[in-house]
Amino acid sequence: MSFRIGLCQMGGSDAQDIYSNKQETWQKASSMVRRAKDAGCDIVCLPEMWNTPYANRYFEPYAETEDGDTVSRMSALAGELGIYLAGGTISEREENRVYNTAYVFDRNGRIIGKHRKAHLFDVDIEGGIRFMESETLSSGDCATVIDTEFGRIGIAICFDVRFPEFFRKMTLEGAKMIILPAAFSKKTGTDHWHLAMRSRAVDNQVYFAAVSPAYAEGGIYEAYGHSLVSDPWGKVIAEAGTGEEIVYADIDFEYVDSVRQQLPLLRARRPEIY
Amino acid sequence: MSFRIGLCQMGGSDAQDIYSNKQETWQKASSMVRRAKDAGCDIVCLPEMWNTPYANRYFEPYAETEDGDTVSRMSALAGELGIYLAGGTISEREENRVYNTAYVFDRNGRIIGKHRKAHLFDVDIEGGIRFMESETLSSGDCATVIDTEFGRIGIAICFDVRFPEFFRKMTLEGAKMIILPAAFSKKTGTDHWHLAMRSRAVDNQVYFAAVSPAYAEGGIYEAYGHSLVSDPWGKVIAEAGTGEEIVYADIDFEYVDSVRQQLPLLRARRPEIY
Repeated sequence: MSFRIGLCQMGGSDAQDIYSNKQETWQKASSMVRRAKDAGCDIVCLPEMWNTPYANRYFEPYAETEDGDTVSRMSALAGELGIYLAGGTISEREENRVYNTAYVFDRNGRIIGKHRKAHLFDVDIEGGIRFMESETLSSGDCATVIDTEFGRIGIAICFDVRFPEFFRKMTLEGAKMIILPAAFSKKTGTDHWHLAMRSRAVDNQVYFAAVSPAYAEGGIYEAYGHSLVSDPWGKVIAEAGTGEEIVYADIDFEYVDSVRQQLPLLRARRPEIY
Repeated sequence: MSFRIGLCQMGGSDAQDIYSNKQETWQKASSMVRRAKDAGCDIVCLPEMWNTPYANRYFEPYAETEDGDTVSRMSALAGELGIYLAGGTISEREENRVYNTAYVFDRNGRIIGKHRKAHLFDVDIEGGIRFMESETLSSGDCATVIDTEFGRIGIAICFDVRFPEFFRKMTLEGAKMIILPAAFSKKTGTDHWHLAMRSRAVDNQVYFAAVSPAYAEGGIYEAYGHSLVSDPWGKVIAEAGTGEEIVYADIDFEYVDSVRQQLPLLRARRPEIY
């Protein structure tokens, strides 16, 4: 049984206050999700921190609790359209902590997955980016998989992708696809984006869908763009440019089974010697 | 302290009987190793199964024990030239078993590493290759690292590269470079060779040297060629074509430390949740 996935590579809003910024951003997000539904998508994905400027000083003021507006809006939209909505990530507050959190909704708008970024982005790259998420964010403590009528799907966030162990875990738990909202920088994106997504796909023999914000020159954060879907053989079957756009891919989990049959990597593992 | 590595991408011999085949092949191998030493190499590498035609029917008849001619010759050559010789792999017999085994010799010709391929190549790829190593070969049960005055180096063989866990293990044991004799096929090489070598390098922040036999059209096994060295950022700093040639790279383990400082992946792991 095949299905269609749509990746909404959206940019942020320019509004000045949080309330109108979130209103405008939601208008854009919901409009893209509706377009993707009209194009036949069963699963629609938003990027990382799509309604929060990607900088430490914004994570706390933009944070919402699970009963806040953003989760409610996403839930209602998924239910209205009858789609799975992998709602990118938002800044989530629980008690006095803030997390980078991905919510996934089923066709009835129910939350069926909630992943908190488990590996925080603390880097200081020569000629590239310095960012210390851990100054403001707390990390999650789990790998996350969701169940759909198509099969099991893993959810992870951006820097999580740097850790092959994490994707192996989701694969061994039955994932046949991974959805990764991610905002790589221009430098690490240019050097590592395709490599990271394709190698996780090939090693684990899964489809891999990575959803970036659009590139915004001179913006608060210049994301790499290039949202893409790799098939389990490492072939990129859909890829965006750097601007705002939706890219689509038709996914067939029987192909996952076929690749795992031809090149039986998961069976050939030697866990007793690792 | 930097050093130079040379990868000898050699092809097989055409001689008809095993004895003269091995004589001729050794002439070629030793001549390439000498050229690499003359070019200033501290470490010289040979490819997978460089003196055995790569097919199941040859592994047993070509197999030698550790006190056989091939190990003795490699040991003597390493000692004579005062180099580290990563002697690719040979078909090794011990009691009634045959292994695909990599020997590494130090500057005095002593064996300082012995790795038996731990993941046997059993695949059946549509439009590609069918091969069942396990019909004739037994597998090793360890990851292997060696110590040099430059630092620690991991040794693995071809299909081993498909398993990220194996390279993580060597990295956590201190490896700053991996040497991988490997004979990918044309199909998997075209699709996965660069991806596999570069992603292991980037994930583990190690240099990665992959040494293939030369491509031999219509030969018993058509290896992919493209022996290469990736640096820890995933940049290919040396790469062969498909023919017989030696490629060289200058390696600086301080760059490994620098990359690990800028993008602290190994520190950011969350082993408690994998």
